[in-house]
Amino acid sequence: MKKFAGILILILSIILLNSCSSVINKQKRSDQRTGVSFERPRPEGQTNVLKLTADPIPVVRVAFIGVGNRGYAAVRRYVNLEDVEILALCDLNGEMVKRSQQFLTGKNLPLADEYVGEDAWKEVCERDDIDLVYICTDWLSHTPIAVYAMEQGKHVAIEVPAATTIDECWQLVDTAEKTRRHCMMLENCCYDFFELNTLNMAQKGLFGEIVHGEGAYIHDLRSQLDSQRSWRTQFYEDYDGNPYPTHGFGPVCQVMNIHRGDKMNYLVSVSSDQFGITAYLKDKFGESSPEAAKNYEIGDMNTTIIKTEKGKTIMVQHDVTSPRPYSRLHTISGTKGFAQKYPVEGIALDPESHQFMAKEEYDQLMEEYKHPFIQEIGEVAKRVGGHGGMDFIMDYRLIYCLKNGLPLDQDVYDAAEWSSLVELSRISVQNGGTPVKIPDFTRGDWNQLKGLTFSY
Amino acid sequence: MKKFAGILILILSIILLNSCSSVINKQKRSDQRTGVSFERPRPEGQTNVLKLTADPIPVVRVAFIGVGNRGYAAVRRYVNLEDVEILALCDLNGEMVKRSQQFLTGKNLPLADEYVGEDAWKEVCERDDIDLVYICTDWLSHTPIAVYAMEQGKHVAIEVPAATTIDECWQLVDTAEKTRRHCMMLENCCYDFFELNTLNMAQKGLFGEIVHGEGAYIHDLRSQLDSQRSWRTQFYEDYDGNPYPTHGFGPVCQVMNIHRGDKMNYLVSVSSDQFGITAYLKDKFGESSPEAAKNYEIGDMNTTIIKTEKGKTIMVQHDVTSPRPYSRLHTISGTKGFAQKYPVEGIALDPESHQFMAKEEYDQLMEEYKHPFIQEIGEVAKRVGGHGGMDFIMDYRLIYCLKNGLPLDQDVYDAAEWSSLVELSRISVQNGGTPVKIPDFTRGDWNQLKGLTFSY
Repeated sequence: MKKFAGILILILSIILLNSCSSVINKQKRSDQRTGVSFERPRPEGQTNVLKLTADPIPVVRVAFIGVGNRGYAAVRRYVNLEDVEILALCDLNGEMVKRSQQFLTGKNLPLADEYVGEDAWKEVCERDDIDLVYICTDWLSHTPIAVYAMEQGKHVAIEVPAATTIDECWQLVDTAEKTRRHCMMLENCCYDFFELNTLNMAQKGLFGEIVHGEGAYIHDLRSQLDSQRSWRTQFYEDYDGNPYPTHGFGPVCQVMNIHRGDKMNYLVSVSSDQFGITAYLKDKFGESSPEAAKNYEIGDMNTTIIKTEKGKTIMVQHDVTSPRPYSRLHTISGTKGFAQKYPVEGIALDPESHQFMAKEEYDQLMEEYKHPFIQEIGEVAKRVGGHGGMDFIMDYRLIYCLKNGLPLDQDVYDAAEWSSLVELSRISVQNGGTPVKIPDFTRGDWNQLKGLTFSY
Repeated sequence: MKKFAGILILILSIILLNSCSSVINKQKRSDQRTGVSFERPRPEGQTNVLKLTADPIPVVRVAFIGVGNRGYAAVRRYVNLEDVEILALCDLNGEMVKRSQQFLTGKNLPLADEYVGEDAWKEVCERDDIDLVYICTDWLSHTPIAVYAMEQGKHVAIEVPAATTIDECWQLVDTAEKTRRHCMMLENCCYDFFELNTLNMAQKGLFGEIVHGEGAYIHDLRSQLDSQRSWRTQFYEDYDGNPYPTHGFGPVCQVMNIHRGDKMNYLVSVSSDQFGITAYLKDKFGESSPEAAKNYEIGDMNTTIIKTEKGKTIMVQHDVTSPRPYSRLHTISGTKGFAQKYPVEGIALDPESHQFMAKEEYDQLMEEYKHPFIQEIGEVAKRVGGHGGMDFIMDYRLIYCLKNGLPLDQDVYDAAEWSSLVELSRISVQNGGTPVKIPDFTRGDWNQLKGLTFSY
């Protein structure tokens, strides 16, 4: 009898061992498939910056690095903020700096100090009278400037994407954790009206358990190809994947509490080949023109699917070279309701969820769930403008939190997670859609915060 | 000098070899990842059934197997077709057969022979006076009945999906090739008005080169869970993936000329976990009810991405357990234009493609590109009905082609390709989104036909 029991236990333990090991192997496989692991241990004595606070700053002294397009727009918005001083303007091109100076003069504001040239940004970062370095340069210089600025004790705000490689993502995280400085990516779409109100609805449980989300950056930017000298279009020449994921992805990650109770485990990404750029350039410059002959690696449409620890999925798309109406999708699908922003804003709730609610009912719901940010500054934001107001809500919140020594709405882990798709999608695409593990930039602390909260 | 040339050639051939082998390896990998290959060699002396024709059938004698829901609806439509005789009605449930008989009597039509019981369908297939066996049974019995019917010399029409495994897909293909009988899956959505007109536009080049397509079956069917005895919901208990892909997928494959100049190479598929079914059953039967405790493997949302030989992508989704408005997406994105059916029908064309065209312009375009099927039978179809008319257009075309000895609109390779997602998506999901190679059911003949054409 004992003998039988012994054999039984032996058999059971073998089964148990096998089932365990098969799971482990499966985990390992998705690492081994691409042969790379992006996890990085936290240096001795370093701690996370979840809900990071810094000393209140009564008057926020700002330096703008890169005032060509987005930077100049930011300068024009920032003069509408109280307790802000623009002390420095920096650009590769002196004309751009002059343009911003003229704007300040026109507003009867003191001139800022001018910095022009390749390494001028370093001098700006090294000043001891700057609180916030606001970075609107080309994608590839975002992280180097941000890291240097934080090392010089400055808080940083970075245009999207904050980083273009996983190594850069880790540089931002490690520097923020080491220096205890704020590092916020300027994901303005998180402050758009539909996104904020539906986030509010989601957090109040209107959609039930959120199961699936979708974001996209579908924006016909083919005209940028007319000038063959754009750093943005040059990026497309030897890159394939999703180079610009954050506008559609960020707001969905906020709704799904990524690194605030859930975490992204892996992604798969597949791109179509490139047809649109060549077709456009042939139309524009001629069938046999050198422009049309140029090789672009980037596919027209990239689709990425992400699976989270809690079993949710997120679908993210990128297409800037096809003739399509603009879309960020912003789809939220839960167990009790559904919301989608593009192509038409719509909300459907149980038990009437078989159709989108009528305009009157919809308007009433949007009013009822109007996000506190919009209640506070929405009307002013619409007047100031900046993509219909969302840019100014972002500016207002950033300065408000710095002034009051509060945690920012977006932390460095958001910046890293949302930007990480740039390289992770590329690796999956290059390997025929192979799953790629998404590193946990919080290094195990993704479940410390229970949901996304904003500070007032 | 010769020496240098020799070295140069050596170097070049090494580079060439390496580049080749790396491609081959990549191909191989996506096979090896899942450890399964679904390719199957064509038996000696067997040839493909592309553009298969059979002898004209002046009066088509039809037997309906399965007259519960879709079958009964088909019987009610078929009495509106000329040169059709309904000779046999078969079902597991005699009441269902009686219901159809009563309908025929009400139309002053001769009664059909009745077949009731488990194996009654075999007797039907064995009759020598039947031309077409029309199969509307549960998913799992589609292929066995269709294969047996073809072996008895009958043409078959099968409700969707035609098969639920790759083995069944191959059974359909091999039996159709061996017996030279028609095997058409009843993908009615290929005959819907927007789908047909946009297919016509695509074939006339209005959208330029089609780069990306999207299809879905998003349909809140949670109420089917009320009866715990539905074979459909039982399928969800131990299946995860996309069990019902063809409604959204078929029309997109037609637009993209799958196995008519292009072929699907691989797919990746990721499912969310299951939240919706349990949430619904808890609401319906109580938190601690046995119904709510039941395990369902199927995730609420499944997203699949397919890459084709010509570098195109197709995204397919399935969600029947979330509160969402109905959608099949039907998205067509090309180098010159864009079309999407859900949530709102819209078309955008260069150079005005930054927005959907105004209603007047849209209506005019739909009129101008009205598909020949709709011109011929559209108004009658709307009167007869069946999902707004598309079902009757499908009926009309099937009988028209059989009567005239013409190739059918959909062939057995369509049935196999569209149904193959049921098992292929499951395998990818079970392996954490691992790419799975899609078998070429034409076995190398996918490039024989240049585009999809219909016979008149």
